[in-house]
Amino acid sequence: MKLLSNREELLARIRAQMHEKRYQHTLGVAQSARELAERYGADPDKAELAGLLHDYCKCWPVEKMFEILVRHDMPTELLEGEKELWHAFAGAIVIQYDLGVTDPDILQAVRYHTTGRAGMSLLEKVVCVADYIEPNRSFPGVEKIRALADKDLDAALALALGGTIQFLIEKQKTVYPLTLTAYNDLVSRKGKEGGF
Amino acid sequence: MKLLSNREELLARIRAQMHEKRYQHTLGVAQSARELAERYGADPDKAELAGLLHDYCKCWPVEKMFEILVRHDMPTELLEGEKELWHAFAGAIVIQYDLGVTDPDILQAVRYHTTGRAGMSLLEKVVCVADYIEPNRSFPGVEKIRALADKDLDAALALALGGTIQFLIEKQKTVYPLTLTAYNDLVSRKGKEGGF
Repeated sequence: MKLLSNREELLARIRAQMHEKRYQHTLGVAQSARELAERYGADPDKAELAGLLHDYCKCWPVEKMFEILVRHDMPTELLEGEKELWHAFAGAIVIQYDLGVTDPDILQAVRYHTTGRAGMSLLEKVVCVADYIEPNRSFPGVEKIRALADKDLDAALALALGGTIQFLIEKQKTVYPLTLTAYNDLVSRKGKEGGF
Repeated sequence: MKLLSNREELLARIRAQMHEKRYQHTLGVAQSARELAERYGADPDKAELAGLLHDYCKCWPVEKMFEILVRHDMPTELLEGEKELWHAFAGAIVIQYDLGVTDPDILQAVRYHTTGRAGMSLLEKVVCVADYIEPNRSFPGVEKIRALADKDLDAALALALGGTIQFLIEKQKTVYPLTLTAYNDLVSRKGKEGGF
């Protein structure tokens, strides 16, 4: 699709979907994802594009996301779970149908950037970690994740996802099962290799 | 079976499976389970018996537990997961085959006393909470769980299981998925009722 090959038009289209702070975060994720891709051997262009698109629907009304998810037959577990997760799954659908993104690596990286899942691809890990560590992010523990991301992507991701699970429990919220399987998968692989 | 109707013989049999500290814990869980059952309308005799039997295999060699679990075709997820969980599943098998316990409520209460699961029965909740709060227990946060257990069994259980998940992540250990589904189940039910 023409839009994807014209960076200025693409940025304008993305910017029109969200408020300024979210747009700055989006640019940060795209930049961090490119850097992580270069460090760990993923495709930097795909990583940057996935970063630019990862929160495409984040500021849309939940009713609109819900309608998209229902129309595309997403699981009940998602529809009845935390609404904060919807933008990732709706986003992967919308960038495919509205923007013409067809690369499955990019679509999966957008789809799983919030929950994670077991057996994540390198690009999925890159975008997920970039979302935690981009320069505008500031939350307790972010420096430790940033430092780990410089030397061990899996360890950084396990720390980030584990922290998210702990945070959700602290707030008495439910935890999406995919996030636990993503965390368990990273920890058990590391365990077999001798730990973090 | 004769053994189950003779309390002294049963206690001697249980005591023979474990070291003294574990036996004192066992008596504590049996007592706390009886008290919780009386408060919340479960069967106090079943609760006490499940409490007495819940850690029957806890001090057995892991190889012995593993053999029992394999022989009874337990899921790979369990066999490849944390060994700390094995005693509950092995215990439910052993008390059935070696001691003649046939009551499914008691067997399930023993089976799920460590992991929990979605849709726990009242007796399962009673034994699981008793295991956290019995008088010999001392860990950060136990007083808050004890206080909650006096007025809201589900809230106490959600707090206890949530704390366990947070603790396991802190230690970079995997979390058994059943425990998360148990926690999510309690939190989402409470959410629909208006929160804890």
